[in-house]
Amino acid sequence: MASPTTAQLSARQRRVRQALDDLTLDALVVTGAANIRYLSNHAGSAGILVLTRESAHLLVDFRYREAVAMLQASPAACPDLRVRDVPASYDEALLACLEELGVATVGFEAAHVTVAKHEWWRRNLEGRRTAIALRPTERAVEQARVIKDAAELATLREAARRIRPVADAAIRAAAEGVSERHLAGIIESAMRDQGYERTAFDTIVASGPHSALPHYRAGDRRLAAGDLVVLDFGGVLDGYCCDLTRTVAIGPPSAEARRLYTAVYDAQQAAIAAVRPGVETSAVDAAARGVLEDRGLGAAFGHGTGHGLGLDVHEEPRITRPRPDVPSVPLQPGMVFTIEPGAYLAGFGGVRIEDDVLVTETGCDVLTDVPRELLSL
Amino acid sequence: MASPTTAQLSARQRRVRQALDDLTLDALVVTGAANIRYLSNHAGSAGILVLTRESAHLLVDFRYREAVAMLQASPAACPDLRVRDVPASYDEALLACLEELGVATVGFEAAHVTVAKHEWWRRNLEGRRTAIALRPTERAVEQARVIKDAAELATLREAARRIRPVADAAIRAAAEGVSERHLAGIIESAMRDQGYERTAFDTIVASGPHSALPHYRAGDRRLAAGDLVVLDFGGVLDGYCCDLTRTVAIGPPSAEARRLYTAVYDAQQAAIAAVRPGVETSAVDAAARGVLEDRGLGAAFGHGTGHGLGLDVHEEPRITRPRPDVPSVPLQPGMVFTIEPGAYLAGFGGVRIEDDVLVTETGCDVLTDVPRELLSL
Repeated sequence: MASPTTAQLSARQRRVRQALDDLTLDALVVTGAANIRYLSNHAGSAGILVLTRESAHLLVDFRYREAVAMLQASPAACPDLRVRDVPASYDEALLACLEELGVATVGFEAAHVTVAKHEWWRRNLEGRRTAIALRPTERAVEQARVIKDAAELATLREAARRIRPVADAAIRAAAEGVSERHLAGIIESAMRDQGYERTAFDTIVASGPHSALPHYRAGDRRLAAGDLVVLDFGGVLDGYCCDLTRTVAIGPPSAEARRLYTAVYDAQQAAIAAVRPGVETSAVDAAARGVLEDRGLGAAFGHGTGHGLGLDVHEEPRITRPRPDVPSVPLQPGMVFTIEPGAYLAGFGGVRIEDDVLVTETGCDVLTDVPRELLSL
Repeated sequence: MASPTTAQLSARQRRVRQALDDLTLDALVVTGAANIRYLSNHAGSAGILVLTRESAHLLVDFRYREAVAMLQASPAACPDLRVRDVPASYDEALLACLEELGVATVGFEAAHVTVAKHEWWRRNLEGRRTAIALRPTERAVEQARVIKDAAELATLREAARRIRPVADAAIRAAAEGVSERHLAGIIESAMRDQGYERTAFDTIVASGPHSALPHYRAGDRRLAAGDLVVLDFGGVLDGYCCDLTRTVAIGPPSAEARRLYTAVYDAQQAAIAAVRPGVETSAVDAAARGVLEDRGLGAAFGHGTGHGLGLDVHEEPRITRPRPDVPSVPLQPGMVFTIEPGAYLAGFGGVRIEDDVLVTETGCDVLTDVPRELLSL
């Protein structure tokens, strides 16, 4: 996959500069790693991007100097980027940069700056020649990221496409006697072979009673006849995440296991069928939740129906019941998120089925193409 | 490995409660994931721990309810823990918990709370029946974690011991024509086979010119004759990290490659030899840096000499030149950190050699046992 081009980065920066205008800020200090990458293609684990009305400044230390130079010599160069060396402390380098730029009112990302760091900035800005006021901002970059652009969609589609052979490898390897950890290793090797640069999150192989723990990872337990096994995995391709869950049965599933599976399957189908522009995220959640409640499994479904996917594996939009801190929003074309209802019965086991969808002009595309029927292995 | 026992958790909580006393706080809100695990054995990716003078409260949502119940029924149960369900928002559940506890002065971890979250807490605490004052704290738990206890040392030793067969597998597989990504996959499979639950960080396989990029990861480039190849990898065992780097040559190394290797090797030996109680972290850094400067490679060594290892892969102490934000501290028995000098020549290549050491009463133990001579593969 090609990285976003200089022209694509320009368009992204323009959208964020519009937000600067609206907030009457002279500059935005970008510290969220995914936001930095989105605006500059810099993918290092450290760095600060300062975006003014006219210029962009990337602060990086020695470790990334060469990598940034290579990026800037490529077709994916960040437009008009000035690279500034951080000799020791990022915080000192940032304040020196702001002073030199002569900016007076500077936004920072309140969700990506700790109280400790903000306090250090505030204290060390006092008594400077030019007064600099720090203003918290929320979602200045995230609100641009929620609608994926063409470069992002191409990568997200490819990231989702490559998960099929990984799922096939997992299903081939899942059998009585195989340990959860070994199976997780096979899944992760298959992801590597497909070209994912890393896992998007810790791979989950939850067998038998463990399948009732929605966030169990993988341990020493060996798969046994009668188990339900939740397999939840995903990879990162050129920065973008894929996230898939399938639940399989070891040997013939019991009637109760089949009942659980069918309920979750129907819930997922109902949620996918509900996705189209203008529909509220809460309505998509309600579509899945309603099916499970009708089957007496409302209490067994304790998490949300899905989450946005992009540079972060959990981002906007959240497909949940509306909450004060997570308001419901209407779906728009270009949003990408998971649909992953589940049902968990303590001591018995659980089922989760997850796919990744893209909102289109008329409905949605399911990006992940992996059989969804209950397999008995 | 066994998790820390209830008695060991009690001792840890006592040390943190002493800090509460010193700060005249009624409670501490613990939001750093590693700090929560250190004090409670709860290893979930979400959760908040509230520690008062007498009680401990773990707030977790549906996804972790079963896992916490299993933990609390085990010998690793957190002492006197009250588990509180989070039905929707962690922030709302936290404020309700604090109000119910009747605490007036509450510390929070300034390094583990964003400005956005703190502002939400502050705003939503206004107008409550009982006034609750929030006070930033720094390092209340981290200062306990910097000296490892017996349970931690046993796990860190075992985590380091298991890296040897992983390094052996990497060296067996490294050969002309093998891609960086494929080699990273072999390393990660070997870690999985050794029982590590996950990688401690993205595996680095940096070959040829890439080896001059200290934080390169692994790409499509195939190893070629004449390459230096930096292999930097580590696993997490029962929550604790191991971190190792070796640099190998593909085919006979050039005179310049040998010179670079010998300089870094000698720098690492000098730093390890400097480690004993009472010596400053800056002096350990200076020991490595001085060797490289003497060889004309001072500018080629742009990062610190090492970092603490524990529940986090980068924690205290930092083995660097002293900086305003990273003061030098005297070493104490029970500290565990990496020693990883490097030298990087853009366009040519780089060398880094990294081991993990434990400060003992008289000097140090090198926990990682992997041959350190330059191998030509």
